[in-house]
Amino acid sequence: MLSEKAAKIYRETGADALYTTTDYLRRYLTGFYSTDGYVIVDAEKCVLVVDPRYFEAAENALKGSGVEAVEGTQARAMQLLSAYRTLGVPFPLISHSDYLDLEEKGFRLKDSYKAFIAAMKVKSEEELACIRKSCDIAEEAFLALLPQIKEGMTEREVAAVLEYEMRKRGADGTSFDTICAFGANGSVPHHETGNTRLKFGDPVLIDFGCKAEGYCSDITRTFLFGDDHKHESFKKAYAEVLKAHLLVLEKLEAGMTGKQADAIARESLKNAGLAEAFTHSLGHGIGLNIHELPNLYPRGEEVLTDGMVFSDEPGVYFAGEFGIRIEDSVFMKDGKAVSFMKKTNKNLVIL
Amino acid sequence: MLSEKAAKIYRETGADALYTTTDYLRRYLTGFYSTDGYVIVDAEKCVLVVDPRYFEAAENALKGSGVEAVEGTQARAMQLLSAYRTLGVPFPLISHSDYLDLEEKGFRLKDSYKAFIAAMKVKSEEELACIRKSCDIAEEAFLALLPQIKEGMTEREVAAVLEYEMRKRGADGTSFDTICAFGANGSVPHHETGNTRLKFGDPVLIDFGCKAEGYCSDITRTFLFGDDHKHESFKKAYAEVLKAHLLVLEKLEAGMTGKQADAIARESLKNAGLAEAFTHSLGHGIGLNIHELPNLYPRGEEVLTDGMVFSDEPGVYFAGEFGIRIEDSVFMKDGKAVSFMKKTNKNLVIL
Repeated sequence: MLSEKAAKIYRETGADALYTTTDYLRRYLTGFYSTDGYVIVDAEKCVLVVDPRYFEAAENALKGSGVEAVEGTQARAMQLLSAYRTLGVPFPLISHSDYLDLEEKGFRLKDSYKAFIAAMKVKSEEELACIRKSCDIAEEAFLALLPQIKEGMTEREVAAVLEYEMRKRGADGTSFDTICAFGANGSVPHHETGNTRLKFGDPVLIDFGCKAEGYCSDITRTFLFGDDHKHESFKKAYAEVLKAHLLVLEKLEAGMTGKQADAIARESLKNAGLAEAFTHSLGHGIGLNIHELPNLYPRGEEVLTDGMVFSDEPGVYFAGEFGIRIEDSVFMKDGKAVSFMKKTNKNLVIL
Repeated sequence: MLSEKAAKIYRETGADALYTTTDYLRRYLTGFYSTDGYVIVDAEKCVLVVDPRYFEAAENALKGSGVEAVEGTQARAMQLLSAYRTLGVPFPLISHSDYLDLEEKGFRLKDSYKAFIAAMKVKSEEELACIRKSCDIAEEAFLALLPQIKEGMTEREVAAVLEYEMRKRGADGTSFDTICAFGANGSVPHHETGNTRLKFGDPVLIDFGCKAEGYCSDITRTFLFGDDHKHESFKKAYAEVLKAHLLVLEKLEAGMTGKQADAIARESLKNAGLAEAFTHSLGHGIGLNIHELPNLYPRGEEVLTDGMVFSDEPGVYFAGEFGIRIEDSVFMKDGKAVSFMKKTNKNLVIL
């Protein structure tokens, strides 16, 4: 029996079979994680071809799931594919070489990507539980990090401790390169974590997340490492960013577009005279990938519905001075936005 | 002025310009690391297009290197490309979507991949220095890990400590998912690090590495966590794997093929009655990627020359019992194979 989501992607793609080797699509279709493998979906069944190192685990994990595990490598997958003529493959995820290989074997290829991302933007209860776990690990790791932060540590060292604390709690790894920015480095939204050392009075911005069961978390906290009483404008801006962040949680409703959600925060910051300092989008979808649909930004036409997961991350940046970003991963439930983050403080923390 | 390596790849590809957005090729051509960016190479120059968050750093880093930094995003890259008609792009690394986009814009596309991997298999002194740094960090982290290993820890926890110790010493991250295998788990060459707990008397196999300046290290150590005096066959096999590993370092010479190198270890293990237990290749090339040319395996026709970097990793596996692998990253110098690893012990360690 084919799962509903696999059946939907199959129908929308309109090929004899779906075929993918992309790890997160494999996981999405089967729920099973492996570094290598081949998934084939037709109107009736979903088959996962994995090599001997994964076969036994796959067979056990997939019992009763409707997905059939088959032992083998690429040759076995090709054998199974020979029953079909048109294949749905995700054009943005398959290399041009692999595309040519399949074409040479006589297949006609159709793009399955749009059907995948449309399906993946609404999460099931099982998926939400994975994201919740990933968010819990990230928050708990952050709380374990705070008392370990000392003057003189480098950004890299702080990131290393945080990543260790996530790993220790069961994370499979980070969901993206941890951004740890001290002082004025925070004014670069995608600052590359480096060897800057922490000084008393520095604002600290940490944007991080992990993966659990393949699903990502994404969170940003900004705080002060000691208060040298030179932070009046920082504190004012912090209050405005927090206000914008919380307004989104309060006002966002199912049926709004990504653009309307973005406008909630953008208007609030504009009223505070901070429009120009908010240089990026309000948020992005989160799931097996750290950037998915929906996009919450001034061009976002996507309608937000229950089961969608995205970031709420307004921020303001003042070159050479500081940056402030406050970010939660949130999900839509009963028509409202609900944050996954319950453990960490969003009021300004002064260490 | 175009670097010699960029000029060679350009000539061999035979297009008006090379174009790539792949991060490690960008780094290879320019020496500069960024998460996004576009490199364009023609007969005379190499241009790196990077967005505002990288531009200043790129301009400073590239001064005098012969690479020109240009501020911009994809639109700027497309503008620069409009001067050319045929583009060399790496077919196995460009998505089919991106290929179609370029084709629609009127470019004729040629595959640059073979020219890249042929150039990249022989390392410059600067590249060897990066790999040496990466190997030093891995070895030092392993030495820092050993005294922290305690009975009852899970494989994940041991991997987390090791990764933290690498990160603390300046690693940018791991070069692949750390394999930490306790007891019989070691008999699966690509065991997935899990929640198995360490018991007295367990053999422990750890295959790991990090990235420094973009370059990978790769090392495996196998040791005993306490000796419960049930390890006679393990100790015998360990001695044979070590013998095979060291024989490669002793006998390998420039001019041999990957196949001949592999045969040094394979013959030695065969003479010890362990031919069937050695279920994989002797080694693989290492550089900006964890798997590059040359391949040291029974079908390896590549001739080994000075400047090549690869793993020397014989191993034997007994399902349900144990696995043993001993691996160094090595390089060819003055016609001989020289290990990067100087700090860790390869004689059997009993913790």
